[in-house]
Order: sequence, then structure tokens, then C-alpha cells
Amino acid sequence: MSIIRQDPTTKEWVIIAEERMQRPHEYKTLEAGRRHIIPDGLCPFCPGHEASTPEELFRITDLKGTGWTVRVTSNKFPALSSTGRLERHGESPLFRELDGVGAHEVIIETPEHDRQLPLMTDHEVVDVLTAYRTRYHALMQDPRLKYIILFKNHGERAGTSLVHAHSQLVATPVPPMTLRRKYEVAIAHYDDTGRCLYYDVAEEERKAKNRVILETDRFLVFHPFASRVPFETWIMPKRHQPSFGQVNEEDLCALATVLRRTLRALYDRLGDPDFNYMIHSAPTEDENKEYYLWHIQILPRLTAIAGFELGSGIYISSMSPEQSAAVMRESPRTLSGES
Amino acid sequence: MSIIRQDPTTKEWVIIAEERMQRPHEYKTLEAGRRHIIPDGLCPFCPGHEASTPEELFRITDLKGTGWTVRVTSNKFPALSSTGRLERHGESPLFRELDGVGAHEVIIETPEHDRQLPLMTDHEVVDVLTAYRTRYHALMQDPRLKYIILFKNHGERAGTSLVHAHSQLVATPVPPMTLRRKYEVAIAHYDDTGRCLYYDVAEEERKAKNRVILETDRFLVFHPFASRVPFETWIMPKRHQPSFGQVNEEDLCALATVLRRTLRALYDRLGDPDFNYMIHSAPTEDENKEYYLWHIQILPRLTAIAGFELGSGIYISSMSPEQSAAVMRESPRTLSGES
Repeated sequence: MSIIRQDPTTKEWVIIAEERMQRPHEYKTLEAGRRHIIPDGLCPFCPGHEASTPEELFRITDLKGTGWTVRVTSNKFPALSSTGRLERHGESPLFRELDGVGAHEVIIETPEHDRQLPLMTDHEVVDVLTAYRTRYHALMQDPRLKYIILFKNHGERAGTSLVHAHSQLVATPVPPMTLRRKYEVAIAHYDDTGRCLYYDVAEEERKAKNRVILETDRFLVFHPFASRVPFETWIMPKRHQPSFGQVNEEDLCALATVLRRTLRALYDRLGDPDFNYMIHSAPTEDENKEYYLWHIQILPRLTAIAGFELGSGIYISSMSPEQSAAVMRESPRTLSGES
Repeated sequence: MSIIRQDPTTKEWVIIAEERMQRPHEYKTLEAGRRHIIPDGLCPFCPGHEASTPEELFRITDLKGTGWTVRVTSNKFPALSSTGRLERHGESPLFRELDGVGAHEVIIETPEHDRQLPLMTDHEVVDVLTAYRTRYHALMQDPRLKYIILFKNHGERAGTSLVHAHSQLVATPVPPMTLRRKYEVAIAHYDDTGRCLYYDVAEEERKAKNRVILETDRFLVFHPFASRVPFETWIMPKRHQPSFGQVNEEDLCALATVLRRTLRALYDRLGDPDFNYMIHSAPTEDENKEYYLWHIQILPRLTAIAGFELGSGIYISSMSPEQSAAVMRESPRTLSGES
């Protein structure tokens, strides 16, 4: 079982999951343990190899009724798992830890080994998002879990070299300190103005126009004013929804279209870049509070995160969001769905 | 000139430095602009090519008196520079920005193109640290600058592919929000206990012993309790010094030995790993406050930073600091200086 420890100088948590390193002397090439490098034809995410993944948690069956379009399983090397106790223990008052209670799941986005999310149909993306929401709802029921994040790592720079398209879900028994801090900022804004900070940010971006790349009835897509990296992209709902768990069927269909178009435009303009995306939501206890708005943050991984960023938390970007948004708008047919 | 923008949702700053991207359509391979890939024999950091670097700010002459052992110059593609105004401007109250006022310098650690810091002599490392301290002192005099960080990127994963050994200094006109947050934690601890949090953490690590890898009269080296990545290493002074600018001559010599031995042991155990190190100091306005202790944080870059880390701020490490410290202690002669 993994353990969760608190850094006494930042109050941030880290997860120490030694099971993820398979052999004790693998530390020279730790990446290998993470990559689970797979010989050809043995991909555990391909149909026919279902028995080589851990317990299946959800699937969408295909039209024939014999196969599947999307599967969710536990992660084979879980960072967190459902057993353990939540009481804090640790060596001293400064060194606190708790058992690695939580969930770590893998969403296999397609049965096709080489099919990537930016090139899927809207319908296939709806299935992926349906799996996200189904698992989000299931884990929300567990009162031990305080925070649920869905994310995708695409490409080696983004932390995966498993080719078969997949995303992940992690649910933690403690809220991340970075979320607590964002929450403080959002609550201060709410107390000052009576409005949701994220709604106001989206309104300002709409007014400014020059960082917006796509707008539909339900969603706004833009490169944020303080983009950390070139082509950082946010997808934000227009209706007030603190958590991804609150999206309804129509939202999900509309989001699939917007997400696919955005990823496809990035794919076209940057040549299949490595990227991460994260679905940010309010803590599960605050599903109904008015401070937060769930959103998707897409971070293309074009440059390395170096010492200055790691040391200061300040990112240096070599391209303004105004400039990158203009580059994105050079794909008007992709963004409007005409292509 | 670059600009500094504040993220309205985190209050963190980003630097947008478009000068660092040399050609407008370089965005597909942004790394290229950062790497300044250099044909053989044209390294701007090698002796004889001094004219190809910006203004020299400091040098230590060699024993012959004709050459140098360490040089400091402005960065050719500076993220921040000394002109501009500090008044906040921006499009709206939510979107604040200021000019990119500050400093961005390069410390060329050796005249030898292929000589790496972990393999230098103690005396050579003293020269590098002397350059760090000299520039720290010089920039501390500028009241516009609130924070000075020294850091090193070694290897591509760490954000450089310039082979010639170098480190960097960045001085910012705003304190990083992450530092403000660490400061809040440290002040709360001081208010509660009357003691410096970092001093207490070092004491606990000394008592626990199993994460300590080296201790001398002046310094403690350990893998912290909540290590974010395998082999994360902290070097902490034993005397109370909030800022690196406060180290004296004896501290500097002792630090050179400790830093070199630590880097050499990492080099031996991990096979010349990519790594970053950062010298964390108090904000320049708080040089004399008792809340903080400067320290060096070394982060080997064995695994990629992926979506979960970027989204939550929580790191997943596949090796405990107890385990990695034990591996480091397998280099006893390197750590004790016998080899």
C-alpha cells in the first residue's frame, strides 16, 4: 500500500507508491517502471487482452454487443487504493502521513490500438466523457474521497509512452493544497463581488476577444491571459457548475464536440504535440458552492519545465496567448466543425 | 521587453518573453529557441568566444592572469531585464501585468567545454559559488528586485541541452506566490513555537537519521520526509541564515565540498542523471527575519512531470526517501571525501 505524506514547509501532499517501481534497482531508469514498455501485439488495452488488466469497473458495449468502445479498469500500478485508514500518523508532528486511500483508474478510450483522441469522431469522444462522468459519480459516493481529478497524458514529454489512447482518474482522501489556495482566491473574490471568479474571468476573456478561439452555446475556449506555456488552453462551461459531476447529457455531447475540435486544431497547428489535460473540479464536499467552475486545462508540452519554474512556481513562456490564439484561429474549418 | 502577468485564479505570476522565440513560426519546435543548439566549435561559453555573449558582469581570473575560471554574463535571451516600470497596468482589474523588470544572468562554471560540476574539484566549485554570491550581493542592492533565485538545469529533461556547464540567476520584481505561501507556513510555525520551521525540520531529520546522507559542522544533507521525486536532496545550513547572500567565506568553502560530494554521489549512483537544483532564499526584504533558512533543493529528473502533478500539485514518487537515502549511502567514500 502507498502512503501519503505532507511536506511540512508547503503543507502539500506527496504520494509514495513503491509498488510502482517493479524491481529495487530500477531507480536508474525509473521511467521504465512508469512506461510499462510493451512488446508488439501484447498491449493490455487491446481487445482480447482484457484478462491482463485489473478488475473492470465500467464498459460501454459496441453496437454488435460483443465488444466494447470504452473500458475503465483499476490502474495496474495504483498510486492509491481503496483499503487503509484515514487517521493521520507519522513520525512527529512535523512529519504527518496517512495510508494511500483513494482510487486510481484507467479509462481506455478506444479498442483501436493506434486511434488518438484528437482524430476520433464526436460520438467516440461522447463515450469517453460518459465513462469519465460515470466513474466521477461512482467515486463521489465515497465519503472518504475529497477530490477527484481526471487527466490525460499524451506522449513521452507528458509522462506516458503507452501508445494506446487512455486517460486516468485519481481520487484523493485529502484536497490538494494548490486547490485549497485557488479556493481561497475564489472565495475572496466571491466575498468582494458576490460573483464566481471563474465566470468573471470567462466574461473578461469574451470581452477581450483576442485570446478566444471557440465559443458555442455552452462552452468558451480560450488561451488564458496568464498562460503558463504556449498554447495553454482552457475549456469552460457557460452555465454555473462547480464540478464535472454536474454536467448533463446535453452538456456532455456539446463538450465532446468542443474538446475534439480544440484537440484537433492543436494537432494540426503543432503537429501532434505531446500534451496533458486536466479536468479541474471543486472538492467533492463543495459540489454546490458558488465559488468554483469546473474547467478543462490543456497544456501542450513543447518545452521542458526547468529549474526556475520548479523553484519559483513562475513559468516563462516564449509566446503570448494573443499570438498563440491567432495561430489557432488559422484552423477556422476545424474549429467550426466544417472539416 | 517581456511582461509579467498575474493569473487571477492563483495570483501566481507568469513571464511572457517573446524575444526568447527567435522566429515567429518556431512554435512547433519551441524547444529549439530555448536550446540555442550550437554547431561544434562555436560554443559561446568557451574561451575565445567571449565577444559572442552579452555584457560580462563578473569574472574570476585564472592563475596565469590571462584567462578566467568562471564568468557571469547577461542571458542572451533574457526573461527579465533592467528597464521598464514597476507600476501595474493591464486590461482590467482581473488581468494585471507589469513590465518584465529584473535580471537574468548566466554563470559559466568553467572554461572547459565538457567539464561537469559533479566532477570538478572543490576549488573549482568554490569559484562557482563565489560568482553566485557576488551577483546575489550586487542585485540585492536594487530595491526594485524582491526575490533572487539561483538554479542549474543539467540535461535535456531538466530544460537545457547546452553542454557547457552553466547555471542561471533570475531576480524578479514580485515575490513568487509559492514563496509567499511557504512563508505563511513558516510564520505560522514561528508564531506557534518561536522557532524557525526549517531549523526544526532539519532537527527532526537528524533525529530520524534514516534519510540523512551527509552531515558536516556546517551543513546537513538529506532526502526530505515528503520527497516529491526519488533522490530529491536538500542541503541545509546549520547556522541561522535566511538568505544565501548571508553565507561567509568559510560557509562557502564548506558548501562547495558538500555540494560537490552530493552531486558526485548522485552522478555515481544514477549514472549522470539530468537534474535541477535551486537555491531557495527569503525575499530580499526579509534577509534578517527568523522565519526562513536558505537551502539547496536538488531534483533529479528521472521521471516526467505528468497530468496529475500539473493538475493537483501532488507528486507521485515511486521510491521512498528512506530507500533512496540508503542507496546514496552506498557511496560512503564519495560522501566522506575519501575518493
